[in-house]
Amino acid sequence: MVYFNCDYMAGAHPEVLGALCETNLQKSVGYGFDSFTADARKAILDACGLEVGEVFFLQGGTQTNKIVIDRLLSRNDGVLCSDTAHINVHEAGAIEADGHKVITLPGLDGKLEARDVLQYMEDFYADDTNGHMVRPAMVYISHPTEFGTLYTRSELESLAEVCRKYRMPLYVDGARLAYGLCAEGTDVTLHDIARLADVFYIGGTKCGALFGEAVVTRHIDMLPRFMSLVKLHGGLLAKGRLLGVQFLSLFTDDLYMRIGRHADRLAMKLKDGLIEKGYRQYIDSPTNQQFFILSNEMIDRLSECLGFELWGPRGEQASVVRFVTDWSTTEEDVATLIALL
Amino acid sequence: MVYFNCDYMAGAHPEVLGALCETNLQKSVGYGFDSFTADARKAILDACGLEVGEVFFLQGGTQTNKIVIDRLLSRNDGVLCSDTAHINVHEAGAIEADGHKVITLPGLDGKLEARDVLQYMEDFYADDTNGHMVRPAMVYISHPTEFGTLYTRSELESLAEVCRKYRMPLYVDGARLAYGLCAEGTDVTLHDIARLADVFYIGGTKCGALFGEAVVTRHIDMLPRFMSLVKLHGGLLAKGRLLGVQFLSLFTDDLYMRIGRHADRLAMKLKDGLIEKGYRQYIDSPTNQQFFILSNEMIDRLSECLGFELWGPRGEQASVVRFVTDWSTTEEDVATLIALL
Amino acid sequence: MVYFNCDYMAGAHPEVLGALCETNLQKSVGYGFDSFTADARKAILDACGLEVGEVFFLQGGTQTNKIVIDRLLSRNDGVLCSDTAHINVHEAGAIEADGHKVITLPGLDGKLEARDVLQYMEDFYADDTNGHMVRPAMVYISHPTEFGTLYTRSELESLAEVCRKYRMPLYVDGARLAYGLCAEGTDVTLHDIARLADVFYIGGTKCGALFGEAVVTRHIDMLPRFMSLVKLHGGLLAKGRLLGVQFLSLFTDDLYMRIGRHADRLAMKLKDGLIEKGYRQYIDSPTNQQFFILSNEMIDRLSECLGFELWGPRGEQASVVRFVTDWSTTEEDVATLIALL
Amino acid sequence: MVYFNCDYMAGAHPEVLGALCETNLQKSVGYGFDSFTADARKAILDACGLEVGEVFFLQGGTQTNKIVIDRLLSRNDGVLCSDTAHINVHEAGAIEADGHKVITLPGLDGKLEARDVLQYMEDFYADDTNGHMVRPAMVYISHPTEFGTLYTRSELESLAEVCRKYRMPLYVDGARLAYGLCAEGTDVTLHDIARLADVFYIGGTKCGALFGEAVVTRHIDMLPRFMSLVKLHGGLLAKGRLLGVQFLSLFTDDLYMRIGRHADRLAMKLKDGLIEKGYRQYIDSPTNQQFFILSNEMIDRLSECLGFELWGPRGEQASVVRFVTDWSTTEEDVATLIALL
Repeated sequence: MVYFNCDYMAGAHPEVLGALCETNLQKSVGYGFDSFTADARKAILDACGLEVGEVFFLQGGTQTNKIVIDRLLSRNDGVLCSDTAHINVHEAGAIEADGHKVITLPGLDGKLEARDVLQYMEDFYADDTNGHMVRPAMVYISHPTEFGTLYTRSELESLAEVCRKYRMPLYVDGARLAYGLCAEGTDVTLHDIARLADVFYIGGTKCGALFGEAVVTRHIDMLPRFMSLVKLHGGLLAKGRLLGVQFLSLFTDDLYMRIGRHADRLAMKLKDGLIEKGYRQYIDSPTNQQFFILSNEMIDRLSECLGFELWGPRGEQASVVRFVTDWSTTEEDVATLIALL
Repeated sequence: MVYFNCDYMAGAHPEVLGALCETNLQKSVGYGFDSFTADARKAILDACGLEVGEVFFLQGGTQTNKIVIDRLLSRNDGVLCSDTAHINVHEAGAIEADGHKVITLPGLDGKLEARDVLQYMEDFYADDTNGHMVRPAMVYISHPTEFGTLYTRSELESLAEVCRKYRMPLYVDGARLAYGLCAEGTDVTLHDIARLADVFYIGGTKCGALFGEAVVTRHIDMLPRFMSLVKLHGGLLAKGRLLGVQFLSLFTDDLYMRIGRHADRLAMKLKDGLIEKGYRQYIDSPTNQQFFILSNEMIDRLSECLGFELWGPRGEQASVVRFVTDWSTTEEDVATLIALL
Repeated sequence: MVYFNCDYMAGAHPEVLGALCETNLQKSVGYGFDSFTADARKAILDACGLEVGEVFFLQGGTQTNKIVIDRLLSRNDGVLCSDTAHINVHEAGAIEADGHKVITLPGLDGKLEARDVLQYMEDFYADDTNGHMVRPAMVYISHPTEFGTLYTRSELESLAEVCRKYRMPLYVDGARLAYGLCAEGTDVTLHDIARLADVFYIGGTKCGALFGEAVVTRHIDMLPRFMSLVKLHGGLLAKGRLLGVQFLSLFTDDLYMRIGRHADRLAMKLKDGLIEKGYRQYIDSPTNQQFFILSNEMIDRLSECLGFELWGPRGEQASVVRFVTDWSTTEEDVATLIALL
Repeated sequence: MVYFNCDYMAGAHPEVLGALCETNLQKSVGYGFDSFTADARKAILDACGLEVGEVFFLQGGTQTNKIVIDRLLSRNDGVLCSDTAHINVHEAGAIEADGHKVITLPGLDGKLEARDVLQYMEDFYADDTNGHMVRPAMVYISHPTEFGTLYTRSELESLAEVCRKYRMPLYVDGARLAYGLCAEGTDVTLHDIARLADVFYIGGTKCGALFGEAVVTRHIDMLPRFMSLVKLHGGLLAKGRLLGVQFLSLFTDDLYMRIGRHADRLAMKLKDGLIEKGYRQYIDSPTNQQFFILSNEMIDRLSECLGFELWGPRGEQASVVRFVTDWSTTEEDVATLIALL
């Protein structure tokens, strides 16, 4: 059986697991006050090209979105995002559970457009009854998006500009950031993200770690008393050094980018293979998630020897499926898939 | 100056205010345990044709929606409604503030269609990842809607049927219920509402009271420990008898319906007058809110001697405006308006 | 039957009700943007001796505490108070419902002592693990307290000083402020409260209004976007002018103080009468609430022709009872009570 | 340097880490639907002597307390516990953040007494104003407590009985359960906990895992839609199998009990050594946490070559310190400590 279901089916990249094993018997203080974590923070700021800034480590993506948004918003504020945003659809109401409205705008291929945000803000402030409405006070985007698509540098700059105009933080969910940074043709670097996003996170869970996400901000005071808020949300890891050790490993010898490049390369190979065989893309993604439209007959046949994901409800004749690559995907896996089609 | 801005510009209907004055010096226990409140409960159940049921009095519409929804939903549940629903747009995030997602479907003239609810529910339960999504666990509609439109009895029955199928309570926001019940041509009675809605409220604030809404349910156990929940939300009136006295008055000598009929009759007169003069309706409402499209020039001229509301942002050439009637609107007011056009 | 149960058994003081009747047919815009409310704001700032400041009107005490505290605290902050504080005991969890911990210190006769607050703060900041604890970020007191007792000006100054030291707002719950300001022997004036409290409220519900409380702060920016927060909490009154009209009346011709003096004078008469007859005070209160210890036999006999409140659980032989006076209490009521003992 | 600070300073017990390494390259579905997790569930139910029941895996103690309590309580319910309970003191307001009041009773050596709970419940239901109070609707205890002390089986039975009487779930926080079950002289077994607690958790983080806690309940319907609630709280681990693999290892070859016995044995050795040398216990704990009173002089000297924890604020002359053992503590570590005294 070969698996393309998602990018969190295996454990950790062997180098990450190796680092955990090597340090296992060393004793350190808890809650992220250890030296591994300090070193990981430094490595990340360096990679981001930030001389000042803050880095916090959390355990998963929904947890990260939930806590960052809870910190950035006041009680009667909401977060603007695309209607297909992870926080709107697949976080079981995690944002609303903390009292914040998720305000959606129609997205294009999963992306939020700066001009739509601008229009919404202008309308909001022009409306006399806006005291009865939720104030949009931050913008959420994911890069890559939930459809694997990418913003261009210029698009990010436009979003950042609208956000600046209305003094709203721009927050970038980088659950699959490695695959975004390494995509062929992208002009967005980690330095760009670090400079344009007010807060963003570098995904570990889906990019080679057992678990873990690194929240980064170039603003020293934007996430005050964050550790205590993390504790309140039940997200503070006792053995915090586990996150430090893993991220230190990911940011040593370019591992994070090596993982991104590997998965993207195989994803392109997979895409080319499918297109060559005449299959139709549902959306054109340059990253490790590939969406194709397959006949239900083909889906049933493939399912017998291949793992992949049905994307949304099954259609009458054909349905959308998703194939995902990661560090553990091999050339043989892709060859097997293509041979089966 | 003549005012058509909204239905809460004056104090209370003179009969309601008279009742408050007459009882002012009588002493009674607090928090709604008084005999006025008990009598009002009885009068309302009678008017609803309910032999068993519960009635609770609250102070305003948003408060009522917020507390009822908070009681009906579990922590990880959401409420389904039209995208133009008051709870989605104009309650400043009151529902989300209690942790509940407002899940919207496109409405038609402000109305939610049973088949759209059914489709959403089918899709939800067909989706393997619905554990990552907010479970829709109740349906909210308003009658009349935010656009003054009305459901037919058959439409309400269809909605009730879908709700029953998925064991979701159907909740009806009756902020302007008087105007809905008294509209020409409606086939929906208070008995119908009481029988089809699992919980609904009879609006007082916009229908002749100083303030106050009456929550009604035919299910004895659907709103457990409700008074305590009202207290938690800061909605428990110390002098609870004020609500009892007012609603007792509204449900004495058919006052509630008299108010509804009066306002609806004048609204129809107003509508006919505008149509006759060639003005275009934005939406066709049979109740006390009338929406017309006027040239900006006319709007500016009217504003000098007339109060009314701009509905949404001002257009380039023309804009939508709202005229509202209530118990305090007179024949002369309507004649003045028509003469000005 | 004569009633001393509480200070919210009758309607409104006749002058307040008169004002509501006189203005009933006047039309005004909603939500507190009317001129009555503007005038009431001005009258209150004047009475407080404040040249700059903000005044907001709400409907009840728990609602006011809940919303003010929700505005003053960040997500991971708590409020310090006495263990007998209303917010800790009798608000059904209204503060916690918004996510804030109520942190209690042992009170003395219902009062919080500045040195206890100071000690708590010193300990908190000396504790290495305080990141795992709730940060105390404001202080709540009531004046008069839940036991009718009063702070001295010097005690308030000490509390204000500790608060200033730790940059915590001092919030004063003035549900029964009229009775505090008019108590014999108090050296605390409304000017003192306005100058020492960062935020406080002037109680209307228990001091002559049908309902309503006036939140006052001398800091222009301490309660940002407050109206919208009030809406979110379901506390925004559509006919906001009802609050303006009532408070304007209370602050015309010294009515608020006349109400306070009347009730306090009768309360002292009642106290003297009971003491003279040999009854023992449970606590010595200089305001309109009087607490005495009566034999259960006497309690049962009195209950037949007198309304009063059992304070806490009934004892084996004797129990604590509360007698309350207000604007509607008469000399005859007090004479009747004393004659019965 | 030798460390006794806490039981989460090293990584995982070598057998647990070994299991993670062995399974690292195997692919499995996410979110705990894998076979490792299924096997771990079965192993735990077996160890608990439960034929029916549910097991859920979470990542840390505060997260577990927070989510379980959020599921067990309705909106206007609170949780009863000792004033020294972890949820009251050291979880940064995690319980209140979800809207629930933590209602405290004075504890004895960290333990909650059944008769105190009974008294509180009787008083609550006897109070006429309890609609204005938070209803206590569950009981929280920890075993071992925050002071390392243990309930007897009879004490647990009494608590369970009071809970049953008032239909409140009894919830046991077993963050350090291994050390409780293996303590010399305890008559409480895992079967007892499973039979008396309605819900409890078996701590992994402090008992040999990298992280992880196993929530167990013998009631099939007590934690409905729990996975979705976990997601809402940001606690759902993408690679859920990491928890399954670790707990399967802990419940293979009696590892969980071996870890408990090892740490308890060394803790007793440490305790005997200190007592023998004349040091005074702060509290007598039979488990892996030992509390002693040391002179500040001794504390300063020890700190140079030993890690341990100051417990609370430093005293004038002497202070309380805590020494903790775990699976990674060696005989030599204890000998070193004793030699230094």
